[in-house]
Amino acid sequence: MKIIEGGVCAATGFSASGVHCGIRKNKEKRDIALIYSEKKATAAAVYTTNKVKGAPLTVTKNNISDGYAQAVICNSGNANTCNANGIEIAEKMCDLLGKELNIDPKDVVVASTGVIGQPLNIEPIASGIPMLKAQLSRDGSKNAAEGIMTTDTRLKELSVSFEIDGVECKIGGIAKGSGMIHPNMATMLVFITTDCNISAQMLQKALSTDIQNTFNMVSVDGDTSTNDMVTILANGMAGNKEITEENEAYKTFMEALNTLTVYLCRKIAGDGEGATKLLECEVEGAIDEKNAKIIAKSVICSSLVKSAMFGSDANWGRVLCAIGYSGAAVDVNKVFVSFKSNKGEISVCENGAGVDFSEEIAKEILLEEEITIKIKLGDGSAKTVAWGCDLTYDYVRINGDYRT
Amino acid sequence: MKIIEGGVCAATGFSASGVHCGIRKNKEKRDIALIYSEKKATAAAVYTTNKVKGAPLTVTKNNISDGYAQAVICNSGNANTCNANGIEIAEKMCDLLGKELNIDPKDVVVASTGVIGQPLNIEPIASGIPMLKAQLSRDGSKNAAEGIMTTDTRLKELSVSFEIDGVECKIGGIAKGSGMIHPNMATMLVFITTDCNISAQMLQKALSTDIQNTFNMVSVDGDTSTNDMVTILANGMAGNKEITEENEAYKTFMEALNTLTVYLCRKIAGDGEGATKLLECEVEGAIDEKNAKIIAKSVICSSLVKSAMFGSDANWGRVLCAIGYSGAAVDVNKVFVSFKSNKGEISVCENGAGVDFSEEIAKEILLEEEITIKIKLGDGSAKTVAWGCDLTYDYVRINGDYRT
Repeated sequence: MKIIEGGVCAATGFSASGVHCGIRKNKEKRDIALIYSEKKATAAAVYTTNKVKGAPLTVTKNNISDGYAQAVICNSGNANTCNANGIEIAEKMCDLLGKELNIDPKDVVVASTGVIGQPLNIEPIASGIPMLKAQLSRDGSKNAAEGIMTTDTRLKELSVSFEIDGVECKIGGIAKGSGMIHPNMATMLVFITTDCNISAQMLQKALSTDIQNTFNMVSVDGDTSTNDMVTILANGMAGNKEITEENEAYKTFMEALNTLTVYLCRKIAGDGEGATKLLECEVEGAIDEKNAKIIAKSVICSSLVKSAMFGSDANWGRVLCAIGYSGAAVDVNKVFVSFKSNKGEISVCENGAGVDFSEEIAKEILLEEEITIKIKLGDGSAKTVAWGCDLTYDYVRINGDYRT
Repeated sequence: MKIIEGGVCAATGFSASGVHCGIRKNKEKRDIALIYSEKKATAAAVYTTNKVKGAPLTVTKNNISDGYAQAVICNSGNANTCNANGIEIAEKMCDLLGKELNIDPKDVVVASTGVIGQPLNIEPIASGIPMLKAQLSRDGSKNAAEGIMTTDTRLKELSVSFEIDGVECKIGGIAKGSGMIHPNMATMLVFITTDCNISAQMLQKALSTDIQNTFNMVSVDGDTSTNDMVTILANGMAGNKEITEENEAYKTFMEALNTLTVYLCRKIAGDGEGATKLLECEVEGAIDEKNAKIIAKSVICSSLVKSAMFGSDANWGRVLCAIGYSGAAVDVNKVFVSFKSNKGEISVCENGAGVDFSEEIAKEILLEEEITIKIKLGDGSAKTVAWGCDLTYDYVRINGDYRT
């Protein structure tokens, strides 16, 4: 397996584009994106569990219920959620794109991200679709990635190649996500493409399995979005024998998918709204995986832990506190905590009580941009990792006046 | 029932004091408090559900297991939690105070609040106890209230008088609480005194019932503290007939208790770390009380709702979002939302979708210091209220470097 260039266009048969169509006022910012596969692809998706769901999710779910799709369209700047005519607009987006690309509108994955509860006009989208088609290109992944960004400050893209039965396959993805991020079963907007030949059923299984340990373990602010989804299109053009069961080829595919999704999780957490640091919480020695996850997410979601990390303050008592209120089965008298970064690792708590440590060294470790909070429990052998970010002045600034 | 002066000393037989003993470096700040009842009182308490518990809670629980207490001692500046010798220190505090006041050390309620995981020295406390005794006074409630404050900016105290069978009774309380506030079954530090004559069993019942709709409905930052508790001492000196069952007198007592606790809840939420606004979330029309509470707390805890309120931004989509991910049983297509303050009320969402409203009027309403988010559901007739505060730059500043 190796990292390659190309993003969502790395896989054979995929092209992409991103343009400014006018949903946003800022003409410098691309606000709509297209991903297209020459060949109809098997498709799988996971969606937010929020009961308030964006209209595009309902339309997408219906469109890919047959297991196939050929294009993805996504606008930023407006979530098309809690609007009386949301479904109508989302379907119109599919119709217009289907006509332009000469494909079945039912083979379109549609997504929207941005403000909730403001009507989405079809006019800028209608004028943007011909531009998107005209600009479709094998080099278009970065433009598409920009088109789906909202408060993101960094473009999120990766692609990897891997081999199945001697055949080279590729998989790539783009993601957006910065605030309102606390996935529960599904998360954020992530679009993945691959030329690997895999059945729709196995593709859905691979995605649903993978997200349990990747996107579902990310939190920026504890708010589960209304519009999050992860979709994957597999057009089979690599030419490998179709994957239809959990064999070696499936395992290889899962590894490649996981490399991509872990990378995107880290990028999303590290680019959390206002964030200056990526936080990683590693839990080991838990009684089982479920409890390991409850603990890791409780720590990564604690406003007090997040604020302490912003201040590079080794306030480990807040880590213990977050473990204690997590609701997990845990013996709090057997908890070990250390902080780790590129500058080293320092133990701050053993058997649930503080140990003497150098505040100076701790500060040096915590001043880095990527911090790991390591928690060793004495309850069993299960482990997990969760990702988050620090809580900063800028998070408050960004969200104090997001709409205007 | 009427509001009176005196705080925890309003009830007959109670006196209090607060002094600086040296736990904190700032000599201007009282850091230890005492409440004393002339007569042994029935006692009841509720405690945090955090599995990591402050040592003083364990000692207090043991001490009042017989239903009686006569004094409360509480220091700020150090939580005496996650310390190897925590229990020993907490017991020592009771022993020293018992000796000084000539009461049984087992009749002492002990509490600590402040940093977690730093050893608590007994020396300053040992030297402070004689000062506390010397300063005990019927005017000491405000000094005691200051002695338990940490990042609180405002003193929290109230007392009310009420009548039972023609006998005047009084109840008063002090509270501290500003950060790490997300009670679950019990919360924060609140000390209540009354001269009402009520059995230990009925006192515990009254307290346990009341907190379900008061302290358990407050959240500042979603972090459930390790050291929170609410205790109440009733010395019976008002001379009413002892309350031993759920009769009219019990109902009157509950009303007085509730007046006191709702006031303290609002004070704690409004003085949340860094807060500029008190947020109140009223939910009505829920299918049942449990679901009403889940929804109200989800809204009040949302970092995005809290940030929007800081910015006086009528971003109601985030309210809908928080309702949607709350996990409550709710028909999101029947949700009405309005924002209300002293400046008026404005409807922003009807039947789950946005309505046209004046951004100018909304801004004027949201610029006030006390905001009510009113949510009307179409699922039933249950209702509730939750309290919280906005999320501000100062929350991050305070918690980015709390220990130093």
